[in-house]
Amino acid sequence: MSSPLKIAVAGLGNVGVGVVKILEQHKKLIADRAGREIVITTVCARNHNVDRGVDLSPYNWVGDARILPDRDDVDIVVELIGGEDGVAFETAKNTLNQSKSLVTANKAMIAHHGTELADLAQNNDVALRFEAAVAGGIPIIKAIGEGLAANELSLVYGIMNGTTNYMLSQMEARGLSYDEILAETEELGYLEADPSLDLDGIDAAHKLAILSSVAFGTKTDFDNVYIEGIRKIETVDIEHGRELGYRIKLLGITKYENGNLSQRVHPVMIDRDLPIAGVMDGFNALVVDGDYIDRTFYQGRGAGEGPTASAVVADLIDIARGHNGPAFFKPASKLVAANPISINQRKGAYYVRLQVKDEAGVIADITSGLKQANVSVETMLQKGSEQDGTAYVVLITHETSETAMKDALNRINEFSSVIETPMSIRIEKL
Amino acid sequence: MSSPLKIAVAGLGNVGVGVVKILEQHKKLIADRAGREIVITTVCARNHNVDRGVDLSPYNWVGDARILPDRDDVDIVVELIGGEDGVAFETAKNTLNQSKSLVTANKAMIAHHGTELADLAQNNDVALRFEAAVAGGIPIIKAIGEGLAANELSLVYGIMNGTTNYMLSQMEARGLSYDEILAETEELGYLEADPSLDLDGIDAAHKLAILSSVAFGTKTDFDNVYIEGIRKIETVDIEHGRELGYRIKLLGITKYENGNLSQRVHPVMIDRDLPIAGVMDGFNALVVDGDYIDRTFYQGRGAGEGPTASAVVADLIDIARGHNGPAFFKPASKLVAANPISINQRKGAYYVRLQVKDEAGVIADITSGLKQANVSVETMLQKGSEQDGTAYVVLITHETSETAMKDALNRINEFSSVIETPMSIRIEKL
Repeated sequence: MSSPLKIAVAGLGNVGVGVVKILEQHKKLIADRAGREIVITTVCARNHNVDRGVDLSPYNWVGDARILPDRDDVDIVVELIGGEDGVAFETAKNTLNQSKSLVTANKAMIAHHGTELADLAQNNDVALRFEAAVAGGIPIIKAIGEGLAANELSLVYGIMNGTTNYMLSQMEARGLSYDEILAETEELGYLEADPSLDLDGIDAAHKLAILSSVAFGTKTDFDNVYIEGIRKIETVDIEHGRELGYRIKLLGITKYENGNLSQRVHPVMIDRDLPIAGVMDGFNALVVDGDYIDRTFYQGRGAGEGPTASAVVADLIDIARGHNGPAFFKPASKLVAANPISINQRKGAYYVRLQVKDEAGVIADITSGLKQANVSVETMLQKGSEQDGTAYVVLITHETSETAMKDALNRINEFSSVIETPMSIRIEKL
Repeated sequence: MSSPLKIAVAGLGNVGVGVVKILEQHKKLIADRAGREIVITTVCARNHNVDRGVDLSPYNWVGDARILPDRDDVDIVVELIGGEDGVAFETAKNTLNQSKSLVTANKAMIAHHGTELADLAQNNDVALRFEAAVAGGIPIIKAIGEGLAANELSLVYGIMNGTTNYMLSQMEARGLSYDEILAETEELGYLEADPSLDLDGIDAAHKLAILSSVAFGTKTDFDNVYIEGIRKIETVDIEHGRELGYRIKLLGITKYENGNLSQRVHPVMIDRDLPIAGVMDGFNALVVDGDYIDRTFYQGRGAGEGPTASAVVADLIDIARGHNGPAFFKPASKLVAANPISINQRKGAYYVRLQVKDEAGVIADITSGLKQANVSVETMLQKGSEQDGTAYVVLITHETSETAMKDALNRINEFSSVIETPMSIRIEKL
């Protein structure tokens, strides 16, 4: 058996502590599987004086992660600090520049700097791995980049944020309003420190940008991900969806064809019978379509100490086994700059909810607005009167274009009978 | 880029032809991903004069697969001949003994000789890979052996035979009898050349034996897989299951704890709300439980030219990338001889269907038989009279033991009022 692989763990939050636990608890199992021991020599966090529920006394303590790769007792740095720039990014660059491998769970950093870091890793002939950055409990990056490597892939989509999936699931199961479930989720500690990352779809978009590059061999292009979160979803939309045979999910969808890349994260209404529609609460799930495998589906826990740390350690085992291939499964120099496809090029049906004055002529206004924009209606679902003299109108359009829909909603919004800015959800046939 | 990796394909059925197609069609994509070209130099089948729908003229033709590894223009042999022994096994041994890597889709051979072949590969310092042997469209062996390598795994179960899943799905969807769907499946060409491999659960058991070794690091032990097929399932059972909130699936289940290994393939009734209960027709699906990832779920096409060939080529790409680790993800010398746990140690509830004479005293007979065996009844579901003076009695037991259940069924079978040998299906809480 070769000499032990010496690890530094930078960042001792939940995931860092989980990595320490796994490497201690499964020392022998991992050595058997990896072909050599994987030992932590050094840990790093800003605050030394916190009880993290695990004995850190056997390890060297370093306060500044950026100097970890300088140490002779460190072969690999595990970066769990987080944040797209700052200390995390500097640590990553230092590590690769010192010709040491980097394992990270940092989705923001890879989404923003994936191509640059992959280049750096390649030039220094070391590994850059980030399985933990996407759907920790599901080995999806390995599945796509290795398991399905014989395929030309065309589509990857999925539930990539457990917190918002939990919120939508609970709104449906318990009839809670958005504000009620938001308060509860906050109290449970499920939200990121910056809740916008979850609620506005940014976290999911980070993961989607990474998956695009893994699946299609394109340069990471976070800036061209269209992003829309779940703040506009109300219980009434979930109920209407159910009546129509749909369920609302926050999906990330990436499609690649002939050099054109469409990346988007937004709420969708999908057929309730799809496997992914049945994925509730904190679970993540992914669908991958390839030309020879047809369709594959993966489900598991998206976050949490155990699943994310498991993914970090799997990367370490891979590196110990000598799997030092390119970060995005083809040489960094061959990653393609794809042509970004705007959300405005979407075609499909839409669910629209309008809050209107409960008065004569409203329906005529709405239908004229739609007609002027060339959007035709499949179903005008309901119109329940409220005590305050307002009513909901809910409709499903026939297939139309994103631009026509925007035009229609702008026109409708101008009528004085329409009280709130119209809300729409894209209906996806997946 | 390194020199091309030279491949021989032995066996030119659907899968062999699929491998040829993928390596031709995705030549450039695969070279980018693998870091070197993968080229077929030689193909091999008994009959040269068949139109296989693909141009084989660029390749050397060899009639006897066993001599393929002797050739200088062959680095890796892809064995797609099939059969646990005979030419396939000899070819495999010759290949490894010549210090050349072997990729195979041969589940019977790996289930029976996996440990021996893994030993041989290790002693000759070459790779033995068989992703295509289990659920072709799902990279499950890689997921378990690499993606979840940080975990101690305790349970793997799933739908491992697409043909029988198709049959059960169609019986439910269209109310067909077992004999009707069997005839149709035969006509569609979905059955193995020896239909018993599908219908009697043997094919699923081969795959289960392989998964056990991958997941738990145990020696392959096909002989201790308990196997029961679907021949006894009737439409009435599927209907009764539905009324009770269950669906009938043919599952393979392997559990490992403290050196004890329980492996079984048999029809089960499971909660209709489980993700795996929703997997219909030709799809395969697998559930893997580990101590840090909790539960993961995988679904995809189990068979067919494309998915299986995709798995073969993924293995080739891995080897081209230099991933030459042990076949079962730990050194062959460290694979453990597990203590096999008999089906007789199962505890759980049972569904029982009895065909009885429609006469007084029958229920008293049945309940006395159950009571003598200490099996208590949760639900006695129904008793529909037939025109011929017979009736069905269907019951669900409380949790009991396999041995008590067998005892009860033997006792019941002795009553003259019971016309057919009682039929039972295990109810699994998964």
